[in-house]
Amino acid sequence: MKVDLNADLGESFSIYKIGNDTEIMNYITSANIACGWHGGDPIVMRETVKWAKEKNVAIGAHPSYPDRLGFGRRYMKISSDEAKNYVIYQIGALYGFVKAESLKIQHVKPHGALYNAMVRDEDLARGIIEGILEFDKELIFVGPSNSKIMDIAEDMGLRVAHEVFADRAYNSDGTLVPRGRPRAVIEDKEEIARRVISIVKDGGVKAIDGKWVELRADTICIHGDNPNAVEIVKYLRRVLDKECIDVVSMGEFIK
Amino acid sequence: MKVDLNADLGESFSIYKIGNDTEIMNYITSANIACGWHGGDPIVMRETVKWAKEKNVAIGAHPSYPDRLGFGRRYMKISSDEAKNYVIYQIGALYGFVKAESLKIQHVKPHGALYNAMVRDEDLARGIIEGILEFDKELIFVGPSNSKIMDIAEDMGLRVAHEVFADRAYNSDGTLVPRGRPRAVIEDKEEIARRVISIVKDGGVKAIDGKWVELRADTICIHGDNPNAVEIVKYLRRVLDKECIDVVSMGEFIK
Amino acid sequence: MKVDLNADLGESFSIYKIGNDTEIMNYITSANIACGWHGGDPIVMRETVKWAKEKNVAIGAHPSYPDRLGFGRRYMKISSDEAKNYVIYQIGALYGFVKAESLKIQHVKPHGALYNAMVRDEDLARGIIEGILEFDKELIFVGPSNSKIMDIAEDMGLRVAHEVFADRAYNSDGTLVPRGRPRAVIEDKEEIARRVISIVKDGGVKAIDGKWVELRADTICIHGDNPNAVEIVKYLRRVLDKECIDVVSMGEFIK
Amino acid sequence: MKVDLNADLGESFSIYKIGNDTEIMNYITSANIACGWHGGDPIVMRETVKWAKEKNVAIGAHPSYPDRLGFGRRYMKISSDEAKNYVIYQIGALYGFVKAESLKIQHVKPHGALYNAMVRDEDLARGIIEGILEFDKELIFVGPSNSKIMDIAEDMGLRVAHEVFADRAYNSDGTLVPRGRPRAVIEDKEEIARRVISIVKDGGVKAIDGKWVELRADTICIHGDNPNAVEIVKYLRRVLDKECIDVVSMGEFIK
Repeated sequence: MKVDLNADLGESFSIYKIGNDTEIMNYITSANIACGWHGGDPIVMRETVKWAKEKNVAIGAHPSYPDRLGFGRRYMKISSDEAKNYVIYQIGALYGFVKAESLKIQHVKPHGALYNAMVRDEDLARGIIEGILEFDKELIFVGPSNSKIMDIAEDMGLRVAHEVFADRAYNSDGTLVPRGRPRAVIEDKEEIARRVISIVKDGGVKAIDGKWVELRADTICIHGDNPNAVEIVKYLRRVLDKECIDVVSMGEFIK
Repeated sequence: MKVDLNADLGESFSIYKIGNDTEIMNYITSANIACGWHGGDPIVMRETVKWAKEKNVAIGAHPSYPDRLGFGRRYMKISSDEAKNYVIYQIGALYGFVKAESLKIQHVKPHGALYNAMVRDEDLARGIIEGILEFDKELIFVGPSNSKIMDIAEDMGLRVAHEVFADRAYNSDGTLVPRGRPRAVIEDKEEIARRVISIVKDGGVKAIDGKWVELRADTICIHGDNPNAVEIVKYLRRVLDKECIDVVSMGEFIK
Repeated sequence: MKVDLNADLGESFSIYKIGNDTEIMNYITSANIACGWHGGDPIVMRETVKWAKEKNVAIGAHPSYPDRLGFGRRYMKISSDEAKNYVIYQIGALYGFVKAESLKIQHVKPHGALYNAMVRDEDLARGIIEGILEFDKELIFVGPSNSKIMDIAEDMGLRVAHEVFADRAYNSDGTLVPRGRPRAVIEDKEEIARRVISIVKDGGVKAIDGKWVELRADTICIHGDNPNAVEIVKYLRRVLDKECIDVVSMGEFIK
Repeated sequence: MKVDLNADLGESFSIYKIGNDTEIMNYITSANIACGWHGGDPIVMRETVKWAKEKNVAIGAHPSYPDRLGFGRRYMKISSDEAKNYVIYQIGALYGFVKAESLKIQHVKPHGALYNAMVRDEDLARGIIEGILEFDKELIFVGPSNSKIMDIAEDMGLRVAHEVFADRAYNSDGTLVPRGRPRAVIEDKEEIARRVISIVKDGGVKAIDGKWVELRADTICIHGDNPNAVEIVKYLRRVLDKECIDVVSMGEFIK
């Protein structure tokens, strides 16, 4: 039994610092690195790639809408062709630093509003997936667990990693409970760990309405911007070890 | 006897179109493609790479200062480390599209004020050269003919292409006569061709003060923004043919 | 009988030139000037304000989504509060140049996708209208003829100018026929003039389905990016004169 | 005896927060508010203006080079005309929020590298000063104490406020000791207070070489990004009170 732990890193920009990247890197196996469109810049990207190398964390691209002002968190109506080429630009830019450090890109996980929009908009999803395919067919596509676009990505020829969110409640249809709602975000580290174990071992978890929701977890997302992120991931890792679940980067087990 | 003809292309942006890229591509052998920082965007980059592929023109990156508002034409005091990582980011971004089209990047030519600044600032030049080296040691560095930084780039391990400007007058010390000055820009296509032949065959040309200036021309820059650019390059190519000078992309003869 | 003619101007940026601003200014009475977010920059804004002053054309702000890459033509999901403050920022920036030239801002017309989105999203519309009100209650709000948000703007305390598009076909519900559709764009100058006269004198025009659609025209939009824009507006002005319809800036007759 | 205390505020951007703006506002009399080019955005600008209103702090514009990536801290070779219009754009944008809150702009203080460059480049300084004059002749220009450009600004028709830096050592020629040098930055709050008192009461302070340097202090800059900024300014205010030096905004005493 294997699972990957991922986090969004390298989102600092210019003189602005956010996240506990160096700390978080001690506990995760895959880093989604911002490519300079919502967060990150060439200096931050270089440093983040270097830290990932030092900590032996696998690297993924974290492409975004062109919306620095909104941190990539706002829906934008872009075409499928724009999505494709925006993704290629950003993967390429990150590849520059990855190549400079003699590493490889393992995966691609769209950021923020782009991640959410692709689930609802198949055309957009196809644009993103084509962009990844055109850059490198060996890359793994990270998307929401059991969503339709995971099948599309596989059909189109990509390996996929089903992602679940450690600290978020799910609806019984497999979608996330929106952040604004009561009990949408789970803060207690023990509950987070219990839920993760349930998903990994039993293939599902109790939804917010009490029903069981099936979820496949190839990779668990840890929110690095949470002030307790380090504590949570540290604890989660310990529990996963105890349960004899291997925490390894997705590239080692996704086929 | 061989020479390359290069032009700065892909500088359109968003709805703004500039240059006669598709026309110019019929006559040149190497394209310096904007990487989205002074001109260009992912859609423009993709199209420009596609045209280069169709016309069998070799591709180079044309990285810039981060100054879209000034089209990369204004000096900025950036550090050597910033220069290095800005160059890597931009080469990488272009590489995305080049890879998507199953091509290779042949060379890197810094744009505008960055090109001018690197000649006067060895630290900056070293930053740029390191960026290129770290991305790919096989890339060719394009810089001003016979300038000191060409030696530096070679010492650091890059192949170099000495560049001369077809339509610009030279001072007897090998520097360009600044654009504002009288007779700085040559518009007559026959004079342009005569000068290019002189540089390629005789290793130099008459400077603006009447003295002889030695110039090495691996590649001749054609200004695509000149309204007569297509006519000039068409004529130049005919004259080069007549003189039995092979016009081939620099990658085929630079060692 | 009075009508205003408006055009979107000052959309050049950096070295990129678009539009026939100086020509168009000879025939219109109100200029919507880009504020640097989708097009325009401080140098372009200053020049455009100066030309408007010289040609005695009234000045309006033309605020946009923060999307230079998409020229403000793509929907973005921004909040009402963001809309309000984005509009204030852009009106203020334009006001800088208007004040420097001892002029006044007459009106505000949202640009592109923001203009389209506000019709469908009342919250967004209210944000925009509040921004205008907070900056200056005397400004005129320009929006789509007979749309619901015109009433909202008036209720909130702004004067409004109902706008029709000279070269666009209308549906019988008063909405524009989308650009992609057949006969959506009218290119014949005589037909354009006939339609404008119909709207101004008879308060409506034949919709694309043959039915009559009521339209109120305080101001007619001329598309400056049309290659025949100058010819069309010149002709239209002549016909309006012949019909004894006063072409004056909206500020002179909107109450 | 009167003196103003100023700080650079509103430099947060998007999701990135920096500074202790709300705390610092309790102790200063003038706020230099970022205008969205190096820091700040419309939401941040609005909030900062609101806080200034609540705390009764006078408002100034803090315009910058167009270099968000470098936080306006890098020299850029812009023309005098560009400087003028960049300053007008930014003052205007801030004016939008100031007007929305029924306030006035009191002063303008160029930011970072632009502040440093104007001292060495009279042409640039004249461009900036013209921009301020063209927007509003009543604005106060804040620049380095006893520098030549203060005379220029006065000759051109602006009121000026000579600024000294509370926590920085001076050379005997009146220039600041560059940050990199030993003892360039003073961290001890008591020494800071002693120096400020010396400058305000005795018109000078001991330079780093032990000589006396004359300095005129209309306004004292407090660095808000200093982690002890709040403690320092709190202490300084107390000492100024004890010495019967009135701490009031510059607009109340600059003629």
